Amino acid sequence: MVVLEFSIFPLDKGDSLSRYVARSLDIVDRSGLDYRSHAMGTLLEGGFDPVMNVVRECFQALAADCDRIECSIKFDYRKGRQGRLETKVASVEEKLGRPVRK
Amino acid sequence: MVVLEFSIFPLDKGDSLSRYVARSLDIVDRSGLDYRSHAMGTLLEGGFDPVMNVVRECFQALAADCDRIECSIKFDYRKGRQGRLETKVASVEEKLGRPVRK
Amino acid sequence: MVVLEFSIFPLDKGDSLSRYVARSLDIVDRSGLDYRSHAMGTLLEGGFDPVMNVVRECFQALAADCDRIECSIKFDYRKGRQGRLETKVASVEEKLGRPVRK
Amino acid sequence: MVVLEFSIFPLDKGDSLSRYVARSLDIVDRSGLDYRSHAMGTLLEGGFDPVMNVVRECFQALAADCDRIECSIKFDYRKGRQGRLETKVASVEEKLGRPVRK
Repeated sequence: MVVLEFSIFPLDKGDSLSRYVARSLDIVDRSGLDYRSHAMGTLLEGGFDPVMNVVRECFQALAADCDRIECSIKFDYRKGRQGRLETKVASVEEKLGRPVRK
Repeated sequence: MVVLEFSIFPLDKGDSLSRYVARSLDIVDRSGLDYRSHAMGTLLEGGFDPVMNVVRECFQALAADCDRIECSIKFDYRKGRQGRLETKVASVEEKLGRPVRK
Repeated sequence: MVVLEFSIFPLDKGDSLSRYVARSLDIVDRSGLDYRSHAMGTLLEGGFDPVMNVVRECFQALAADCDRIECSIKFDYRKGRQGRLETKVASVEEKLGRPVRK
Repeated sequence: MVVLEFSIFPLDKGDSLSRYVARSLDIVDRSGLDYRSHAMGTLLEGGFDPVMNVVRECFQALAADCDRIECSIKFDYRKGRQGRLETKVASVEEKLGRPVRK
């Protein structure tokens, strides 16, 4: 399973981007994949093709009316592991011996 | 103010990284800066120098016993804005008309 | 057209990664897309689907025998622009009034 | 030594960014550090503090008149290794048994 983090935004629509980020989050939220959103991007968990397909749909939703788009993606694949949106931080907290801000 | 997201880990210590991530989160947690941790990294908010200084301390804490270290950093600077660890997602939810998973 | 930059490597095979990077560059080199490789990653130019398909093939070639894989991707889409692997730097050099190291 | 790759640009100045990228490359070029520029960013080699200081100077040069700035940074530290702007790709070519496009 893959934990993928991405952010995508237009570069030709000024610096008020929340309308465009909302367009992507709507797609993420309806995808059926487990996800978490934060101030710098969105995390998804799933197989390689399902998570990349969400990125593709977000790109296409922006490309409909944006002429320049920037996107950054990072993923971490670990064979046979699931539920890592929660367990990765929990495992760090266990090593640390105390909870962290989430 | 800067919202910075980063992840840092050794490449020469196998694939069980939570012990090393805990070392960084301990530094982040004690830094006094506002932060959030998630499955793919940590967000910090502050001035450019304070947030970069935290990254530097995390690097040095790993370089003490790790011979190869990978780090990725992304930041978003917005003049005069504070509290964006919360307000960026809230602004997207407002456009979307419903809450998202966080 | 998209200019995409990516790097992909296993996390469970020690810190000597050139064998695994070679596996990806072989795929990139045979893809027929225009590309450039550098010390931190590879640039590709093409449509969204062709460039993402190369990333997918590189992932699958590693997933065959690697249990943990890290990947970072960044892309810049600009409607109707082609040849940007060269023209982006050339345009900066023109503004700068002198050549830079490439 | 660190090989660091970064890109930095304003988000409030439209989508013609080469003027702003030129401002950063001027700083990089005058820094005395070894570097390479490509279509998606700039590579630097040096100690942690010298390379991060170049990023800091580029940030400050933009923050002088830009109200929103995006930056992504990736670095690879390897104890005791130097000259990796060239040797990393050369090592991959050796494994591959043929040259790649650079």
